[in-house]
Amino acid sequence: MKKEHKLSQKSGLPPGSLVHIGEKKSEETQITLIDYSQEELSEKKCKSPSECFSYKEKNSITWINIDGLHDVEIIESIGKHFDLHPLLLEDILNTRQRPKVEEFDNYIFFTLKMLSVGEDQNSITAEQVSFVLGKNWILSFQERPGDVFDPLRSRIRNKKSQIRGKETDYLFYRLLDTVVDNYFFVTEFISDTTEKLEEKVIENPNQDALSEIRFFKKQLLLLKRAVSPLREAVAFLYRDPNNLIHESTTRYLRDVYDHIIQANESSDNQRDTLATIMDLYHSGISNKMNQVMQVLTIISTIFIPLTFIAGIYGMNFNYMPELQWKYGYYSVWAIMVLIIFALIFFFKRKKWI
Amino acid sequence: MKKEHKLSQKSGLPPGSLVHIGEKKSEETQITLIDYSQEELSEKKCKSPSECFSYKEKNSITWINIDGLHDVEIIESIGKHFDLHPLLLEDILNTRQRPKVEEFDNYIFFTLKMLSVGEDQNSITAEQVSFVLGKNWILSFQERPGDVFDPLRSRIRNKKSQIRGKETDYLFYRLLDTVVDNYFFVTEFISDTTEKLEEKVIENPNQDALSEIRFFKKQLLLLKRAVSPLREAVAFLYRDPNNLIHESTTRYLRDVYDHIIQANESSDNQRDTLATIMDLYHSGISNKMNQVMQVLTIISTIFIPLTFIAGIYGMNFNYMPELQWKYGYYSVWAIMVLIIFALIFFFKRKKWI
Amino acid sequence: MKKEHKLSQKSGLPPGSLVHIGEKKSEETQITLIDYSQEELSEKKCKSPSECFSYKEKNSITWINIDGLHDVEIIESIGKHFDLHPLLLEDILNTRQRPKVEEFDNYIFFTLKMLSVGEDQNSITAEQVSFVLGKNWILSFQERPGDVFDPLRSRIRNKKSQIRGKETDYLFYRLLDTVVDNYFFVTEFISDTTEKLEEKVIENPNQDALSEIRFFKKQLLLLKRAVSPLREAVAFLYRDPNNLIHESTTRYLRDVYDHIIQANESSDNQRDTLATIMDLYHSGISNKMNQVMQVLTIISTIFIPLTFIAGIYGMNFNYMPELQWKYGYYSVWAIMVLIIFALIFFFKRKKWI
Amino acid sequence: MKKEHKLSQKSGLPPGSLVHIGEKKSEETQITLIDYSQEELSEKKCKSPSECFSYKEKNSITWINIDGLHDVEIIESIGKHFDLHPLLLEDILNTRQRPKVEEFDNYIFFTLKMLSVGEDQNSITAEQVSFVLGKNWILSFQERPGDVFDPLRSRIRNKKSQIRGKETDYLFYRLLDTVVDNYFFVTEFISDTTEKLEEKVIENPNQDALSEIRFFKKQLLLLKRAVSPLREAVAFLYRDPNNLIHESTTRYLRDVYDHIIQANESSDNQRDTLATIMDLYHSGISNKMNQVMQVLTIISTIFIPLTFIAGIYGMNFNYMPELQWKYGYYSVWAIMVLIIFALIFFFKRKKWI
Amino acid sequence: MKKEHKLSQKSGLPPGSLVHIGEKKSEETQITLIDYSQEELSEKKCKSPSECFSYKEKNSITWINIDGLHDVEIIESIGKHFDLHPLLLEDILNTRQRPKVEEFDNYIFFTLKMLSVGEDQNSITAEQVSFVLGKNWILSFQERPGDVFDPLRSRIRNKKSQIRGKETDYLFYRLLDTVVDNYFFVTEFISDTTEKLEEKVIENPNQDALSEIRFFKKQLLLLKRAVSPLREAVAFLYRDPNNLIHESTTRYLRDVYDHIIQANESSDNQRDTLATIMDLYHSGISNKMNQVMQVLTIISTIFIPLTFIAGIYGMNFNYMPELQWKYGYYSVWAIMVLIIFALIFFFKRKKWI
Repeated sequence: MKKEHKLSQKSGLPPGSLVHIGEKKSEETQITLIDYSQEELSEKKCKSPSECFSYKEKNSITWINIDGLHDVEIIESIGKHFDLHPLLLEDILNTRQRPKVEEFDNYIFFTLKMLSVGEDQNSITAEQVSFVLGKNWILSFQERPGDVFDPLRSRIRNKKSQIRGKETDYLFYRLLDTVVDNYFFVTEFISDTTEKLEEKVIENPNQDALSEIRFFKKQLLLLKRAVSPLREAVAFLYRDPNNLIHESTTRYLRDVYDHIIQANESSDNQRDTLATIMDLYHSGISNKMNQVMQVLTIISTIFIPLTFIAGIYGMNFNYMPELQWKYGYYSVWAIMVLIIFALIFFFKRKKWI
Repeated sequence: MKKEHKLSQKSGLPPGSLVHIGEKKSEETQITLIDYSQEELSEKKCKSPSECFSYKEKNSITWINIDGLHDVEIIESIGKHFDLHPLLLEDILNTRQRPKVEEFDNYIFFTLKMLSVGEDQNSITAEQVSFVLGKNWILSFQERPGDVFDPLRSRIRNKKSQIRGKETDYLFYRLLDTVVDNYFFVTEFISDTTEKLEEKVIENPNQDALSEIRFFKKQLLLLKRAVSPLREAVAFLYRDPNNLIHESTTRYLRDVYDHIIQANESSDNQRDTLATIMDLYHSGISNKMNQVMQVLTIISTIFIPLTFIAGIYGMNFNYMPELQWKYGYYSVWAIMVLIIFALIFFFKRKKWI
Repeated sequence: MKKEHKLSQKSGLPPGSLVHIGEKKSEETQITLIDYSQEELSEKKCKSPSECFSYKEKNSITWINIDGLHDVEIIESIGKHFDLHPLLLEDILNTRQRPKVEEFDNYIFFTLKMLSVGEDQNSITAEQVSFVLGKNWILSFQERPGDVFDPLRSRIRNKKSQIRGKETDYLFYRLLDTVVDNYFFVTEFISDTTEKLEEKVIENPNQDALSEIRFFKKQLLLLKRAVSPLREAVAFLYRDPNNLIHESTTRYLRDVYDHIIQANESSDNQRDTLATIMDLYHSGISNKMNQVMQVLTIISTIFIPLTFIAGIYGMNFNYMPELQWKYGYYSVWAIMVLIIFALIFFFKRKKWI
Repeated sequence: MKKEHKLSQKSGLPPGSLVHIGEKKSEETQITLIDYSQEELSEKKCKSPSECFSYKEKNSITWINIDGLHDVEIIESIGKHFDLHPLLLEDILNTRQRPKVEEFDNYIFFTLKMLSVGEDQNSITAEQVSFVLGKNWILSFQERPGDVFDPLRSRIRNKKSQIRGKETDYLFYRLLDTVVDNYFFVTEFISDTTEKLEEKVIENPNQDALSEIRFFKKQLLLLKRAVSPLREAVAFLYRDPNNLIHESTTRYLRDVYDHIIQANESSDNQRDTLATIMDLYHSGISNKMNQVMQVLTIISTIFIPLTFIAGIYGMNFNYMPELQWKYGYYSVWAIMVLIIFALIFFFKRKKWI
Repeated sequence: MKKEHKLSQKSGLPPGSLVHIGEKKSEETQITLIDYSQEELSEKKCKSPSECFSYKEKNSITWINIDGLHDVEIIESIGKHFDLHPLLLEDILNTRQRPKVEEFDNYIFFTLKMLSVGEDQNSITAEQVSFVLGKNWILSFQERPGDVFDPLRSRIRNKKSQIRGKETDYLFYRLLDTVVDNYFFVTEFISDTTEKLEEKVIENPNQDALSEIRFFKKQLLLLKRAVSPLREAVAFLYRDPNNLIHESTTRYLRDVYDHIIQANESSDNQRDTLATIMDLYHSGISNKMNQVMQVLTIISTIFIPLTFIAGIYGMNFNYMPELQWKYGYYSVWAIMVLIIFALIFFFKRKKWI
């Protein structure tokens, strides 16, 4: 039995009622903290959220990552400490949330989907990631442990890396950029698969192919729903620099925006391609049908008249002169062979054989 | 006989002529009143509208709920007391009204649809709800008794609940939010049903399935027409705070807006899915046809030539040497079996069997 | 022979050349005048336009209605007296004109279509109505006598009615409102008819149904072309109050706008429904085809093998041992019955019978 | 061999390189001049462009019309004298140019398509016309002699006509209006033809009809491409009066705009109609197919079982009791007739015959 | 094995990490320099980028062209010297980049696709070109040697040509214009090919034609993706003149914009045409099917009844009076011929033969 909470379960609850919407994807909630400045770096796994709270006041940049959303109390205590709006917490917990950005007085909330190709190399899996960007801290919320940020973490650990000298909004950009760059794995995976599917459908348009087409349509929808609302959200960020996002970072966000446009365009193209494959499927089916009909027609058209002639001379009339002719039997054969050749010639001209 | 008034019956009447448009859904008009402030609460069923009027002048928040729209006189007397515009009253009575918001000098009018899954778990029922939000009062008009606001009512009764400390616009938001949250029951119901329908169509694409597809198309249209105009209406509210809706409430309305977007997106997706199911249906039908044709072709192609051969040796020519051969009969059988195997081989290669 | 003037006949004429475009729908031009103030009312049929001209200067509200557009001279003399722009007169005479509003220095020009269900209860008829709204006068131009304004006229005659106390722009609103409200007769008529059509197509998808679908498509187009440009025109009026349309009337015009939106939405829905019916038609046709094919296949598949067996034992070979067997004939029957049952079982499993 | 220059031939040339793009449609370039004021009028055919140049300086209104674009030198010398921008000259010569307006410092450039129904009453021909509107002169460039401006010319010659008392921008409006009014010949022609086509397709949906549908699709595209960009261009003119186009002329241009909207709408409707005709064609084809199948099925279903029965009693078994019965032969006939009636009854019930 | 780098390989790298994305199309990177003023001209092939750097400081216009993008170090050193933003360098190296313009403080970045018809005259090849426009220098980056700029180069070498007297932004315009003008080769190629394809499909709608349709759909997509984003990019340039692009050049850029619109429109039309061809293909297929069915039906319908009659008189009943009739055999023939004629008459009336 899937442990899944549905959106409708929240109906009737007051706003800010924290309920985890979606499948429970991890057993335990893990909290990890990275705190760095140009000179210093500390990293830590926190057992309870309160262990991290002291870092908020420090001048260094603090990134707190939470894996696992089912433990509502932890989320709540973090929300209280960082003074997060109850509706924001609701959105973090609702894994059916559309990607969006929301600006609050002291922080910016950004939620989007992290997509990856499943381990079976066959389907796309989506995980919701939410960021809260404050003055000198970032919170990130994920549905389960394991993410795409490891290269980023090792770069932070490297004292000489660019990121160590930059501010919080740059870290935020890098997190966003990392998630968006991973979309290209997905678009390339879909592009490769549809290409294979196209060949398959041309070769043998059967029910299997049809259900694969449907399957990829659904996968594409997942991609589309993750990418399409992102455009507006990121555009909002790079167009209106504010006290949290500096002018210098907007150029980078503009770059993320370009990548989103590209991923979105790619998903549109794949959609077109799937429509073409569907067309191919239908053409293939009707071609097969035509072939079947042609074989039936050729066989019937040849043998039905011949059978009729044989029937004629199978009649038992007392007076049928042809039956007495010496070469009657051979004449009949001759006529039949003539008919066969005439019909074959007719079919050739019609380009049926 | 349905007691239904049609829109066209109002043609020729002056504006503000109150006529109930739509099916009569309840026998009696019920008026219930809840009046509360942080400290006090009074609740009451009113026999006539005038019993409620005194509460309007009090400083506390007054919520008057009217169930049943067919008794035009009651609506009219309420309209007179609260100084409502005649066109507004017309809109309340016209249950064919599109969801919309309209700002008047001293109040805001909001009308939308309350959707729920019918008791037969098979179809969606819609009921029109209209709100009038005044300085410290809210009127709500419904087509029949029974609604989704009971959890809200019990929260109001609880002296410690958040809502008791807030203002009228917050109550208005909670009413709106409750209606919108219920849309998710409907979207989830449709999503579940289309999934089942998809499997059904794949298994057996018959007329039944077709009429179910049509049925859900109509259900979806109901949802679409309820949700789609709401976007604009709620966006109007949260974008322009005014003397009735406070700045602090707009964030909550923005949340309602997000939910509407989500419900709308879900209905678009279901529409797509239905189109896919329709495609599946057509594919299924043409596959069935193909199979029928293949069986016909295989049987015909095998037996028509054989019958011809049998016909040949059924002829009554006096001189037919083969007939006198000792093993003639067996040779004919041998030839026939050969032909059968040749054709089966041909069909196998064509992947027809 | 239809007396119809085409648009292209005006090509090459200078602007303001008055030519009646469209079918001539009435024999005579009728001019009727209603002049009223709160206290007084006079009503009159004018033989020539000049009889009405004196009323223009009076302070009371003057409504001059002209039925019949083919007598260009009458229109011209009215145009001269009321100082109407030549292009405006052209638009009045061109019954192919799209609905639109145009603001001139001293008057507003509004042209739209009056739709009604024909007397045969089978098709929609359209008539062009044009209004010119001046300071204290309104001109209305119609293609033929008989209109939907009679209830309005009797209300004007009633000294106590609301309209007597209001200004010219309110009369204008009432005229517009009356025309638009009549659209609901048409949308309801179409809605009823498509419902019947849907059932008809499900029962028997034949050529008749197809031509009905096409017919209603054209009727819908008529509706669409009448309603769709009206939105913009009425929105223009209620958004920019001016010296002719008072602030207080805009709320009423907004109500007309809502009705237009509703009529337009209804026509869009009917369009969708017709598309669904077309789908149903095609499904019905292909279902019928499938049934035909199945019957053919079942009969052929059963009897072709049996006929072959009969053919075998109709051969005239001298040596055919089975023919001498005592129960040969009965055995053949037994085999045949066996084959029949086997095939019936096969068809059952395939769900063909 | 068609003398046609293609757009790609200009690739690599510097801007302002004058190359005539399109088919050469006339042998000689003709230059005609009309110069008029309220009082005076002179008309003249110029052998070389320089003959006209003196008129430019006069206060009277000068209209120079050039027929034939292949002689690049003439165009160039005119361009030099009137100080036209090289890119403008390029656009005049490029007959693949989209309709557009462009405002220069001292003149306005307007290019559009002149459409007419070909002499064979079967297809639409398009010719590019370009206007340059200066302070008191207008240049018009056409691809070949013969145009739709003759009624306009005779009106100019008439000293009392309205046009003689107006300014250059009014002449420009009249030229534009004349071209646009001619579009209605084309829309009416297409409307008539599609109506005929619809009947034809209903009667006999064959390959001929299909190629006619395709042909009119292309004709419509021609119309669409001529009319659709005009909207924006004319709207630009009437919205921003400037020193060349007076306020008083904008109302007339607005009228031209209305005509363009109407022509555009008409082309959209025809497009819809063609889609419906295509649908009809497909329905017709599949109906024909169904009829063929039904005839086949009826004949086969009746005779295949009968032939089987005949086959049974054609078998040569030594012991077949029925063969010895006195009324065996008649009984078989009776059974056969019974079967025929049963099947006919079955087909009637299925509504196949 | 294709040496192709995919976009997803960059995931996780910091911004400004230079990785060449796309196929490696040339072996060596070639750097060529043209430096000119009204009076002087120098041209040079540089072995290393540093050889060119000195020209940057000169007052003359410097155009440095780089062919080949795989050698990341060269690109990097150029980037450093001209102070280019790391994200800009990334975009140059990413040959999957959408066409776009980006304005930086001291230069403008423009990237687009250079399209040409392949040498096999069968497909379109695309190459990415990026321009960086500075105060008095232009950098151009291409994927491989060989381009469309040779006519432009020889014009620069000509001391008297227009271009020598103009500024850097004019050279930039000429480069852009040259690339865009070459799109017409591609649109004309596609237009010619679809015309041929249309005829082919009408003649013989087979699988070959289908795969050609698909192939051109993909080619068109290539064109569309190259042209469609250009509109916005060029519009950005001509609408906002700045310190790098002078007012006088915007008129030229507007001309480039017109060409892009035209190329885009042409690609849309071709898309429509391909859809029509697809329709034709389907019609052709179903026509073929219909013919097959008609032949089958005609043959079956004629011979099945005849065979039945022959079967009747092949029965072996002892008492069959017709068999003893003298003219029995001839009567049967007469009946059969009658039936044949009746059926042929029936088919003629149905227009099947």
